[in-house]
Amino acid sequence: MDIKQYMTEVGQRARQASRALVKASSNKKNSALLAIADLLESSMKTLSDENDKDLKAAKERGLDDALLDRLALNEEHIQGMAEGLRQIAALPDPVGEISDMNYQPSGLQIGKMHVPLGVIGIIYESRPNVTADAAALCMKSGNAAILRGGSEAINSNQAIAACIKQGLDQAGLPTDVVQVIETTDREAVGELITMQQYVDVIIPRGGKGLIERISGNARVPVIKHLNGICHVYIDGTADRQKAIDIAYNAKTHRYGVCNAMETLLIDVAALDNILPELAQKYAQEGVELRCCERSAAALSGQPIVAATEEDWDTEYLAPILSIRVVDGIDAAIEHIFEHSSGHTEAIITENYTLARRFLAEVDSSSVMVNASTRFADGFEYGLGAEIGISTDKIHTRGPVGLEGLTSQKYIVLGDGHIRG
Amino acid sequence: MDIKQYMTEVGQRARQASRALVKASSNKKNSALLAIADLLESSMKTLSDENDKDLKAAKERGLDDALLDRLALNEEHIQGMAEGLRQIAALPDPVGEISDMNYQPSGLQIGKMHVPLGVIGIIYESRPNVTADAAALCMKSGNAAILRGGSEAINSNQAIAACIKQGLDQAGLPTDVVQVIETTDREAVGELITMQQYVDVIIPRGGKGLIERISGNARVPVIKHLNGICHVYIDGTADRQKAIDIAYNAKTHRYGVCNAMETLLIDVAALDNILPELAQKYAQEGVELRCCERSAAALSGQPIVAATEEDWDTEYLAPILSIRVVDGIDAAIEHIFEHSSGHTEAIITENYTLARRFLAEVDSSSVMVNASTRFADGFEYGLGAEIGISTDKIHTRGPVGLEGLTSQKYIVLGDGHIRG
Repeated sequence: MDIKQYMTEVGQRARQASRALVKASSNKKNSALLAIADLLESSMKTLSDENDKDLKAAKERGLDDALLDRLALNEEHIQGMAEGLRQIAALPDPVGEISDMNYQPSGLQIGKMHVPLGVIGIIYESRPNVTADAAALCMKSGNAAILRGGSEAINSNQAIAACIKQGLDQAGLPTDVVQVIETTDREAVGELITMQQYVDVIIPRGGKGLIERISGNARVPVIKHLNGICHVYIDGTADRQKAIDIAYNAKTHRYGVCNAMETLLIDVAALDNILPELAQKYAQEGVELRCCERSAAALSGQPIVAATEEDWDTEYLAPILSIRVVDGIDAAIEHIFEHSSGHTEAIITENYTLARRFLAEVDSSSVMVNASTRFADGFEYGLGAEIGISTDKIHTRGPVGLEGLTSQKYIVLGDGHIRG
Repeated sequence: MDIKQYMTEVGQRARQASRALVKASSNKKNSALLAIADLLESSMKTLSDENDKDLKAAKERGLDDALLDRLALNEEHIQGMAEGLRQIAALPDPVGEISDMNYQPSGLQIGKMHVPLGVIGIIYESRPNVTADAAALCMKSGNAAILRGGSEAINSNQAIAACIKQGLDQAGLPTDVVQVIETTDREAVGELITMQQYVDVIIPRGGKGLIERISGNARVPVIKHLNGICHVYIDGTADRQKAIDIAYNAKTHRYGVCNAMETLLIDVAALDNILPELAQKYAQEGVELRCCERSAAALSGQPIVAATEEDWDTEYLAPILSIRVVDGIDAAIEHIFEHSSGHTEAIITENYTLARRFLAEVDSSSVMVNASTRFADGFEYGLGAEIGISTDKIHTRGPVGLEGLTSQKYIVLGDGHIRG
């Protein structure tokens, strides 16, 4: 197989399909989504058989349990995929939405219309459910999708792709609206991320290594999410109970997620009143505490570890928390500037002025007052679904829903207007 | 001079300055802009002397008249710069603007806040007035700027930079908010467009060659404007007078601008009624017509040139127009899909359905009905100023004003909310 030739053809077909999709009504797109959901459910046996092939090959190659777990596609997962598609069908269609339509002094009426980006390339790792999920979000937002899953999930992904193609066909849409790359050759990724004439944006979904590799080599714009080193800052005026509840929740609600707190910053004025009780709660959950000197002193007698400089830059994704005492909000904001990944930060305070300062001065995709960082999520934000969380500043920032997969063009309505 | 070291320091200073700027009130930013405007006017002699050095050197190097014209900075140009700064001071400040603030089912109040992108690198060619203009747009939108002008304008640009620094200082802002690169070494550009840790976006302003070179090598996101191959499509139902007026205006109002029409598409049904008179008007202006076979036949007896395939992909920026007869809107949209640069296209029609189809299906940064493409411009669109016109789909599309130089982060207001 000539990979370059193959990918060029994939790109050309995607571009053509995107033109048909931009003209498709919401009803048509929704009927495709609902058809695919039904097909996934009625193909459970086939999907499961194909997934078994992947699991068997993965076991033979000695892949670890965590990866096997992510690769598995059981009945519950398949129903989850179908349910996800139905939810996306139920969301409002962003395409064609017009806003800010105003008359200008010339008499022209000028505003903006949401339009699809065109062709989106999604590169992801072992979870096969991403195939249906990403395809649905692209399709609903009017974009053709080129999907490249992990090589270990190739059979599962192709089985899901067959359901998608059949559903598109049933709804009268071109089957090239969603293409799942059929080769596991790495060169295909290299082509995908550099085909500027056929691909408008790349969204990598996976670990930091994958994302860095892709954004380091892409010529197509990338919407990316590197990592989540999220901070909670407990100010001296914080309500004691809110502070303890939020700091506890932000760390322990789930460990392996990007919006979990990794570093707790605590104002010296709140230290003795709040930290000892909070540390006991963490200890009961088995959270390892990596403390600066002052927080270590405040927790004397408790089993803590001395933090190193490296801790402030580490996304643990584990029951580990680094803790640093700071002298007021300026020091907290300075620490966040130096060490945050720009994902989500929260202040716990009862002080109006400090809340406003934190909101204005902290430059992260989500900035919160008196709320757990765990809320940074497309569903909690009312987007209905998300394709990921962008830590970029360009185009779209924070949880990315359907609107983040669109662009806005200007529309200009005249009545024979010429420029004088 | 160690260019890499120098640029790293420029980047670090810009990043620090951007943090001070995000906290600056609109009043402070505006007072800096007004101070700079006054300083430019009171430094007219110095600016003129420094510009003379550049002009002298350019003449010695044998640069052509068009370039010398762009390089010149006379009293009128300086007053124009000052006036531009005062206009930008008068515009509303986008920074901190909050929108879509809604309560979610969790009880959290969630919305978006416009924030600066951070540090913007602007790379431009010979016109020194861009120095003041770009600095002002970045500053007002809360961004630190690193400016790299053409080497032939180095003395003029440094003289303008001195006024900017003094104005920033008078207003109590860090002078590093705007830095004009002091070396003409090309390596500095290479550093600027790859310093991802210090620069958030690059905006090249200049010819297609410059922009392609920069976007081909940048690692920092680029907001770019490649070229303007703009189309006007005259539909069979077009009002005869509107069609003639708009097609005439779109071509002849100014030739060397990106929003001038380069190709006229005309429905076969409108051909005999409209094209002969229009062609006579063009002939009176000395516009060379490059015609497809059918339009040539309709203009028999008039001095036309046969169009080649290359004409459909050419931005003339000159009194030349290519003309193609098409069979209806589908053929017009197909031609635009194949040949447009995605800048601006207009349909002239009285048909409601065709107007809606053209608006929905043509994928350009501005799509117009019954208006001249010459209106595609930040001032005409009510943006108050523009740093350029983006033909990208990502981040910002069409004329880019202050809002296009910002990003939106999520803000989340709670009252002790934890995730269950």
